[in-house]
Amino acid sequence: MYQVNPPRVRMTPLGGFGAIGMNMMVYEYQDEMFIIDAGLMFPDDEMYGIDLIIPDITYIKERVKKLKAILITHGHEDHIGALPYILGELPTVPIYASKLTQGLIAVKLKEHHLLEKAQLRVIKPREMIKISENFSAQAFQVNHSIPGCFLFAIKTPAGIIAHTGDFKVDLTPPDENKMDFAGIASLGEKGVLLAFSDSTNAEIPGFSPSESIVKNTIGSIFENAKGRIIIATFASNVTRVQHIIQAAYKQRRKISVIGRSLSNYVNIATELGYLKIPPNTLVKPQALNSLPDDKITIIATGSQGESRSVLTRMAEGVHPQVKVRAGDTVIIAASPIPGNESSVHRVINKLYSLGAKVVHNRLMDVHASGHGYQEDLKLMLSLLQPKFFIPCHGEQKHMIAHAELAKAVCVQEKNVLMIENGNSVELDDKVCKVVSKSVAGKVLVDGLGVGDIGTVVLQDRKAMATAGAFLIVIAVEKGNGKVVGDPQVITRGFIFMKEAEGLLDESKKEIKRIIAREKEGTIDAAREKDFQRALREEVAEFLYEKTGRRPVVLAVLMRV
Amino acid sequence: MYQVNPPRVRMTPLGGFGAIGMNMMVYEYQDEMFIIDAGLMFPDDEMYGIDLIIPDITYIKERVKKLKAILITHGHEDHIGALPYILGELPTVPIYASKLTQGLIAVKLKEHHLLEKAQLRVIKPREMIKISENFSAQAFQVNHSIPGCFLFAIKTPAGIIAHTGDFKVDLTPPDENKMDFAGIASLGEKGVLLAFSDSTNAEIPGFSPSESIVKNTIGSIFENAKGRIIIATFASNVTRVQHIIQAAYKQRRKISVIGRSLSNYVNIATELGYLKIPPNTLVKPQALNSLPDDKITIIATGSQGESRSVLTRMAEGVHPQVKVRAGDTVIIAASPIPGNESSVHRVINKLYSLGAKVVHNRLMDVHASGHGYQEDLKLMLSLLQPKFFIPCHGEQKHMIAHAELAKAVCVQEKNVLMIENGNSVELDDKVCKVVSKSVAGKVLVDGLGVGDIGTVVLQDRKAMATAGAFLIVIAVEKGNGKVVGDPQVITRGFIFMKEAEGLLDESKKEIKRIIAREKEGTIDAAREKDFQRALREEVAEFLYEKTGRRPVVLAVLMRV
Repeated sequence: MYQVNPPRVRMTPLGGFGAIGMNMMVYEYQDEMFIIDAGLMFPDDEMYGIDLIIPDITYIKERVKKLKAILITHGHEDHIGALPYILGELPTVPIYASKLTQGLIAVKLKEHHLLEKAQLRVIKPREMIKISENFSAQAFQVNHSIPGCFLFAIKTPAGIIAHTGDFKVDLTPPDENKMDFAGIASLGEKGVLLAFSDSTNAEIPGFSPSESIVKNTIGSIFENAKGRIIIATFASNVTRVQHIIQAAYKQRRKISVIGRSLSNYVNIATELGYLKIPPNTLVKPQALNSLPDDKITIIATGSQGESRSVLTRMAEGVHPQVKVRAGDTVIIAASPIPGNESSVHRVINKLYSLGAKVVHNRLMDVHASGHGYQEDLKLMLSLLQPKFFIPCHGEQKHMIAHAELAKAVCVQEKNVLMIENGNSVELDDKVCKVVSKSVAGKVLVDGLGVGDIGTVVLQDRKAMATAGAFLIVIAVEKGNGKVVGDPQVITRGFIFMKEAEGLLDESKKEIKRIIAREKEGTIDAAREKDFQRALREEVAEFLYEKTGRRPVVLAVLMRV
Repeated sequence: MYQVNPPRVRMTPLGGFGAIGMNMMVYEYQDEMFIIDAGLMFPDDEMYGIDLIIPDITYIKERVKKLKAILITHGHEDHIGALPYILGELPTVPIYASKLTQGLIAVKLKEHHLLEKAQLRVIKPREMIKISENFSAQAFQVNHSIPGCFLFAIKTPAGIIAHTGDFKVDLTPPDENKMDFAGIASLGEKGVLLAFSDSTNAEIPGFSPSESIVKNTIGSIFENAKGRIIIATFASNVTRVQHIIQAAYKQRRKISVIGRSLSNYVNIATELGYLKIPPNTLVKPQALNSLPDDKITIIATGSQGESRSVLTRMAEGVHPQVKVRAGDTVIIAASPIPGNESSVHRVINKLYSLGAKVVHNRLMDVHASGHGYQEDLKLMLSLLQPKFFIPCHGEQKHMIAHAELAKAVCVQEKNVLMIENGNSVELDDKVCKVVSKSVAGKVLVDGLGVGDIGTVVLQDRKAMATAGAFLIVIAVEKGNGKVVGDPQVITRGFIFMKEAEGLLDESKKEIKRIIAREKEGTIDAAREKDFQRALREEVAEFLYEKTGRRPVVLAVLMRV
């Protein structure tokens, strides 16, 4: 039978393109739809006060009846972190992921009282998942910086789509998480129509270093250290935590794990068999004081210099249990995520000031990235040999660099697509192209509020961060609007008021001058908005002239 | 004649130790005192709204009668930027510096109306300066990222002190600024008692790359580019600007310089003969439109992703004269200063999105640091062979790394000192030690205000940056304090009010509840402070419960 317009598979990313974080891809075919990943993004320094960012799922909600399943590549926040915020808005469908990933998802859902309702299905490497009539998927193990990471091969009516998830190629992984070269290569042999692949490190030449190097470095630091060892790393890097535990155990050191997220990870990973801790090795922080220094290891959160983290509080001398001192070796087994460099450097310098020896990744190999470098990416391309290629999981510059690699390895230039969040791509065996652009925004989460913060609120925060607030209160008679008494002025974050009483008095004079312009010193209701605007603008100008600063000026008319 | 306590030379840094920036060192001997450098520091991301930071010069003012001179090593902001803020508070003394440095200082002082009074003395390489009865200094040329950089050899009654200033060793400098190896080596030969040396890159192994490499890379990009070239670099890197001009001229491209600081530097450097621009090469931005793309070069500010800079505005598509488009090559000939990484990455990604080809230092050698790496620093130590050594110009971690290098090269462990800002070091030919700790703080400059911002103001700005402000106004009767009418509430940066009217109403109820606790709804003068505090605290707690946010809560009692 001849079909004029054969139905095409459609993919729409709602996050993960153009910025690292918030990974989420929607796959559709006729009346079937599923999602891969549902991640969050951490705010950058222009997102004043925002805790985290999740994708806008309007696109999914508009077609929610088609939703069949959610697949998760691995358990990092940028792949699972949005789940607790979106599951409540979606019907219950199976969530497929590896055992560790499911453990981490379960903790989140429990905190948000969503666990009961969720259908979490653990899948094993190579397992085939029947998603719907026309979609199935198979999971292949890849290396990354957390165990239990999958590349998904999606079987669709158009052909096979490979969705790599985050990965690196580690030829000597120091755990049992080997990359499934045979499985992935067999996909290429069968024919991969389209591949989406991780672009994070596409600018970095060479092969990514193996995690085994980190294991060896940590081992040798433990062999040589004479005092306490304090080590911070990513809580989710279970493999690295395992090495730290082994290195400590070998030197007969006890270990204390300090920090909520780290304890969570250690508990889950131990429970699920990913982490093996010898008996009598873990001790409570309180027990450290009775041990000699060379029998102490502290694993702590704070490898990114986060302000409330354990390591930062130690560096600032305000941690209740641990005071850093000369003789301590502090290892920061991580590299700063872009944007965190200054915070990490601040922590390092403070630790030095306390007399500690500090080891970080500029000095020794105490960190290896979980994302493949150029040669890793080329190897993946060589294994998959996709006809079409779309770089994902990266900023613009990373995806452009990855596109160049794909062309160099095996993909025809016209078959490499650069897309953006919200671009719907349609695919059959001959064509892969962007067909439409949908809503794909960011939803800001601040405290308990999801999506109640917008541009105006952020702009106000920015303005107040820069020059504070200047507040004018004027009392007027209810009814006639006649100004009563003197205006009041208070400020916050603008100037040190004790030294600025003169300015305060001058400002009040200026305000009175503006009031005096009103007929009979009366602000009638019709004039109120205009008056307030003029007052704000003129006082702002006056303050800028006097101080060179532009605080947010607020004016309240109090009717009495 | 036998002296029991021979007078010692005393040095007190007021900045430059423990953080990069704000370099300033005070040298004293009996009734004589002089300063080397008077720099500013740029604020980090915790310094909300602060424009710049200068050293607290209380120490100098307390002994101001002894002041004989100011020596400046080179013309970067972290070495000259505090001059306009401190000269007004000091008597007029000679300021010694190279020709270019003096040109840059003059521009600053003119802006601040201080030029008339200043005594600027241009010194030449190897020139000997008689500072006072007991102090003299000789200037030796070193390599850095701006021409006219000096190492000062200070002749003191205790012996020779070498003060390197910022430097690298460039064996193939692409300009006439050769490092004076013979002169510096002869100091070592005569005997250097103490050296202060630049620690910025003490963590980086190897030799720093030569600026010639950058020259060659830029040349080859110009040879191959077909469209417009837009290049951003540090305005002060006159040598690099010269290469850009030469490369453009060779390809018969016209050049437009856009950005105030860059134009300033180009003008001064041209005037003083440091920059040579062929006639008819510079054009106004307006003239670019009539030129073919391959005849256009734009040199712009913004290599650090600064928000108001020319390159950032181009990337955001809001620059009035230049719209970036496909075919353009944008070169960012700089590396991000720690803390600026995210801003620079944002700009790069936006430029990519506009279709430009972007070249930055991760992809090609379009930047070389002006600060020596480990081998440069060891070479300097080998030339100077100082008896005592104090690492300077660095964060704690850089200075510690530099101390290790000094021990490895030639200085006895006990003769290497780590000091902090405000530490006074005393020196004679046998002893070099910290003798006291003085005030050495930071003075924050915000707009026109110098030193009127303190911790409280910054904390308020931070709090408002995080969760905005929530403002309560209550009218009370003058005299008896009886509450009149309903409280008013307004917010900024807290929540999107249109969607939060329910919360607003609930808050007002909560405020009324708190008022109702007061006897007869009256807040008498004695109770006022307590009432306001309780109101602020309880409303803050209420808002946190409802929203998970902690805005700054302000309460005004308006007496009418």
